[in-house]
Amino acid sequence: MQKLTEQAKGVYIISATPFTDSGELDLASADTLTDFYLEKGVDGITILGILGEAHKLTEEETEQFMQRVLTRVNGRVPVIVGVSHPSHRHVERLAKKAMACGAAGVMLAPAPNLKTDPQVENYFLTIGELLGPDIPLCLQDYPQSTGVYTSVPVMLRLIEALPQLVMLKHEELSGMGKLSQLRRQSAERGLRRISILVGNGGLFLPQELARGADGAMTGFAWPEMLVQVCRAYAEGDATRGEDIFDRYLPLLRHEFQYGIGLALRKETLRRRGAIQHARVRPAGPALDQNDLDELTGLIDRLKQKLQQGGVQ
Amino acid sequence: MQKLTEQAKGVYIISATPFTDSGELDLASADTLTDFYLEKGVDGITILGILGEAHKLTEEETEQFMQRVLTRVNGRVPVIVGVSHPSHRHVERLAKKAMACGAAGVMLAPAPNLKTDPQVENYFLTIGELLGPDIPLCLQDYPQSTGVYTSVPVMLRLIEALPQLVMLKHEELSGMGKLSQLRRQSAERGLRRISILVGNGGLFLPQELARGADGAMTGFAWPEMLVQVCRAYAEGDATRGEDIFDRYLPLLRHEFQYGIGLALRKETLRRRGAIQHARVRPAGPALDQNDLDELTGLIDRLKQKLQQGGVQ
Amino acid sequence: MQKLTEQAKGVYIISATPFTDSGELDLASADTLTDFYLEKGVDGITILGILGEAHKLTEEETEQFMQRVLTRVNGRVPVIVGVSHPSHRHVERLAKKAMACGAAGVMLAPAPNLKTDPQVENYFLTIGELLGPDIPLCLQDYPQSTGVYTSVPVMLRLIEALPQLVMLKHEELSGMGKLSQLRRQSAERGLRRISILVGNGGLFLPQELARGADGAMTGFAWPEMLVQVCRAYAEGDATRGEDIFDRYLPLLRHEFQYGIGLALRKETLRRRGAIQHARVRPAGPALDQNDLDELTGLIDRLKQKLQQGGVQ
Amino acid sequence: MQKLTEQAKGVYIISATPFTDSGELDLASADTLTDFYLEKGVDGITILGILGEAHKLTEEETEQFMQRVLTRVNGRVPVIVGVSHPSHRHVERLAKKAMACGAAGVMLAPAPNLKTDPQVENYFLTIGELLGPDIPLCLQDYPQSTGVYTSVPVMLRLIEALPQLVMLKHEELSGMGKLSQLRRQSAERGLRRISILVGNGGLFLPQELARGADGAMTGFAWPEMLVQVCRAYAEGDATRGEDIFDRYLPLLRHEFQYGIGLALRKETLRRRGAIQHARVRPAGPALDQNDLDELTGLIDRLKQKLQQGGVQ
Repeated sequence: MQKLTEQAKGVYIISATPFTDSGELDLASADTLTDFYLEKGVDGITILGILGEAHKLTEEETEQFMQRVLTRVNGRVPVIVGVSHPSHRHVERLAKKAMACGAAGVMLAPAPNLKTDPQVENYFLTIGELLGPDIPLCLQDYPQSTGVYTSVPVMLRLIEALPQLVMLKHEELSGMGKLSQLRRQSAERGLRRISILVGNGGLFLPQELARGADGAMTGFAWPEMLVQVCRAYAEGDATRGEDIFDRYLPLLRHEFQYGIGLALRKETLRRRGAIQHARVRPAGPALDQNDLDELTGLIDRLKQKLQQGGVQ
Repeated sequence: MQKLTEQAKGVYIISATPFTDSGELDLASADTLTDFYLEKGVDGITILGILGEAHKLTEEETEQFMQRVLTRVNGRVPVIVGVSHPSHRHVERLAKKAMACGAAGVMLAPAPNLKTDPQVENYFLTIGELLGPDIPLCLQDYPQSTGVYTSVPVMLRLIEALPQLVMLKHEELSGMGKLSQLRRQSAERGLRRISILVGNGGLFLPQELARGADGAMTGFAWPEMLVQVCRAYAEGDATRGEDIFDRYLPLLRHEFQYGIGLALRKETLRRRGAIQHARVRPAGPALDQNDLDELTGLIDRLKQKLQQGGVQ
Repeated sequence: MQKLTEQAKGVYIISATPFTDSGELDLASADTLTDFYLEKGVDGITILGILGEAHKLTEEETEQFMQRVLTRVNGRVPVIVGVSHPSHRHVERLAKKAMACGAAGVMLAPAPNLKTDPQVENYFLTIGELLGPDIPLCLQDYPQSTGVYTSVPVMLRLIEALPQLVMLKHEELSGMGKLSQLRRQSAERGLRRISILVGNGGLFLPQELARGADGAMTGFAWPEMLVQVCRAYAEGDATRGEDIFDRYLPLLRHEFQYGIGLALRKETLRRRGAIQHARVRPAGPALDQNDLDELTGLIDRLKQKLQQGGVQ
Repeated sequence: MQKLTEQAKGVYIISATPFTDSGELDLASADTLTDFYLEKGVDGITILGILGEAHKLTEEETEQFMQRVLTRVNGRVPVIVGVSHPSHRHVERLAKKAMACGAAGVMLAPAPNLKTDPQVENYFLTIGELLGPDIPLCLQDYPQSTGVYTSVPVMLRLIEALPQLVMLKHEELSGMGKLSQLRRQSAERGLRRISILVGNGGLFLPQELARGADGAMTGFAWPEMLVQVCRAYAEGDATRGEDIFDRYLPLLRHEFQYGIGLALRKETLRRRGAIQHARVRPAGPALDQNDLDELTGLIDRLKQKLQQGGVQ
């Protein structure tokens, strides 16, 4: 398997982890979900992320799911594996297992309770040393979930110190100024230009692409939109990109809701035939009839717009 | 002045507080801003809210601004005054001052550090007793800012205990399920139906109106959209409401950004002629050229859509 | 093995989890540590608690450690096993494994992100149903770590609804008023009197025993103090209890420090011969020479006081 | 009035703000409280701190209290005035007012919501520039209350950039390692040695003095202990210092409780004749009979120890 590099761009979809209605790992749906993502044209897949219910899997389930997806992808696109954990030993164990199974790289959010720049920097330097230079690293900057803030100077020092740090998943809210600063200061200091993919459900994707992002890494259940928007921007056609984006924005904003968002995403994937069951493992959100009808209405509106718009 | 009642509905715009470029209170802009809101058709105005920089005003400025707006409005629509403060005495002082100046009611968020249902309930019961039954109360439920969560059972008990509680400003994220539960359980128990206006910049306004909200209380710099959407829903035309909403959604989502959102809102109001200066008092966000250009692009796209769409 | 009941009292020591200097699970030290606790006269042992580095163990290590301690204890005192986890399935899996291995009961803190009384209550009701009435439950109320607050009314309702809820580990800071209210309201309503053991390192142990606590569940590295203080109070000799407590208070307060406290505790246990190595798995605190010397000084002072005081 | 310098040491007591039982500012008690502190031998007084209920005063009350204390002190010891506020303009207004009234310097905690090292550094640089070099500054590092963490590198850069920064109030929990690092790295880089006074109720005072603190700035209601301990350490007699400290530790730890601590402190000051009423302005804690009796017991024990010990 080819390893992740700074040249990565486009859409790295954050994969859901499908379960049966009784809550068992649904490996058959892992196959169909992988196929769905590939058909929609994603450039890579990220599994076992913070919102992928990774912390609700047993060690055996983690390994089963990872191997199933990697086998199904079969090298067609790079697969990144989330390895965030409060224990250094677990990070190391998971990262080495992932690479041995054929992952292209690993994604790591900082452990909780890091408060100052030196603490955050030391955390990544320590893990970087532990994993060694051969495991490509995507740093996940997601303070809304971790409570940890990574400043631009820390990012720049890490880019200098860790050659294996090839990608940033940028999802600080609101962090568009930070994205611009990072690109500008990195260029001014002549540092490596790493890949930056954006999260937050893609809520600011057009603006972020215009500010120097290379693509998106998020789990929006209509990945074809992300793909088309990234392509439009890559081809220099921002207007087309925004036009496509705006059509999906009502649904994108709807999925963005904290808590219930994951359930909406899985339900949408189920309706689109990508997985068999929309089950979220508890403790986790469940949808009521109101939520389901509301989602139906929003999807119907999207379909009408797509028919009218002649796009897609 | 007529007092706020449970029948309140439509758009209660959250007013910005304008400053000059040197940071002084800009009372001339208070007039033009009030005129702007009234011209756009708002049903009420809320001043000195959490995001209205109320905590950056001196006591004298607070009173000056309040009197200026109330004088300008001159009874045409109800004005609600934000009175949230960690000290009970300040809440009382501000509320009585506001009512004496002609406010229709006051808005109150819970003091910080309330953790359990009994603590939240006791807080509002205590303040309710302190202010007495003659000051209409809007409870602001905004846990993203206050850190305090108000459960549905607490809301129901407060509706029973405090006749002066006539309005809820609902802006828990994501709280649409809560809104539905509140309406349903309140009806099942035969309680008074209070007015519920929604915040969060209006990000979920159509869905919330469908779930039983009576309108919006938020500061979006294009109040005419909020007004039209609320009217469409009031007239039973949800499709028209959503069509109008969707046109503005890219800008609405853009303003929704934490931190920088207030600066974007004031800059938009400035460009629309509502205020003279976009100044935010520090500590507060400032816009760079990138931010300004980005905003220009989004506003241009809105104008194009409005021309094409034939709406507005 | 006898199961945990409401009659539990005295000292349930929170056991550390010993590691070798290279970070491997140190099962030989698990034996000596268990012996140490039993020699000091503890009435029970709680393993795999929040501060016991449970989240840094693999599933295999968890099982190995649990079985080793249970075998060593061999029924002489009840052993409680911590089973807190964000996933309901893990809680169930761990709890059933623990009981199968001979645990007397399980300890459960609420999953994170529960905000309101109904959410907290529902969490425990759901888990209570999942585990069934045959697994005795100790509810851990530790909001400084979990961010979740359990009100007195919720506790009372849970005592009524869940017969298997036999113990509360009370460690809200500052929560002495809550402890008094819980005892009083529970008695007024004629509810079962459950066992309440206190945490927070025992920082307020004498006051809490006077307010109706039945003992301590904490990991202070001088368990003999906790034992003697609880016995003194049980025998009605509060003055003797406070005298003993005060001698150890400088060290107790020192261990109480967030973060570094765990490292100080393990180092003390090492010096006292209870474990071979003071290792804390990273990410976790490490002691420098300054810290070690400071601890030496405090321990020397304790020893002098004990010699002078003629107690112990 | 002489201005605050880096040579400041000993005890700067954090003054309570006394109210009458009806909640009015009690200026007569401000006099007796000031006398009480001076009689106990404090080296300075800090008024209007975070825990001094400063945010519950009107602007007029703030000025009245400040002037009353400054008049009563009459230059005998330096008085520091707390000026923390989310608005830069308020900080400036309060600081200039305080200096005009005869304060020796001002104390400033960072505004909330600062997350990264550059944000914290910029905050203090901005305020430093706003206030100018003539207003001596004490930086309050109290992340438990502000949520803002100030790293050692930021402190060092601020010491270099702001000559008026002469004092650090150190009360990060647990921050003893940080205190040692700050002293060591400041010396290694040849920076000015600023005054460091410690907070947290003095819970770790002996250890902190040994690590290079110059004294305490906290509101413990037995200031004579703080004074004696600081003197003992200044005279090189750590053992005497710790002996004195240990006698008061049960009470000190008791006052340290979050929330209720302020009420206990005021009640103790009332019992000692320093103020007329123990009133805390709501929202704030109130003591019940249980709390009052418990406090009586702890004070009685202290008095017995002091009689036996022959100290003081």
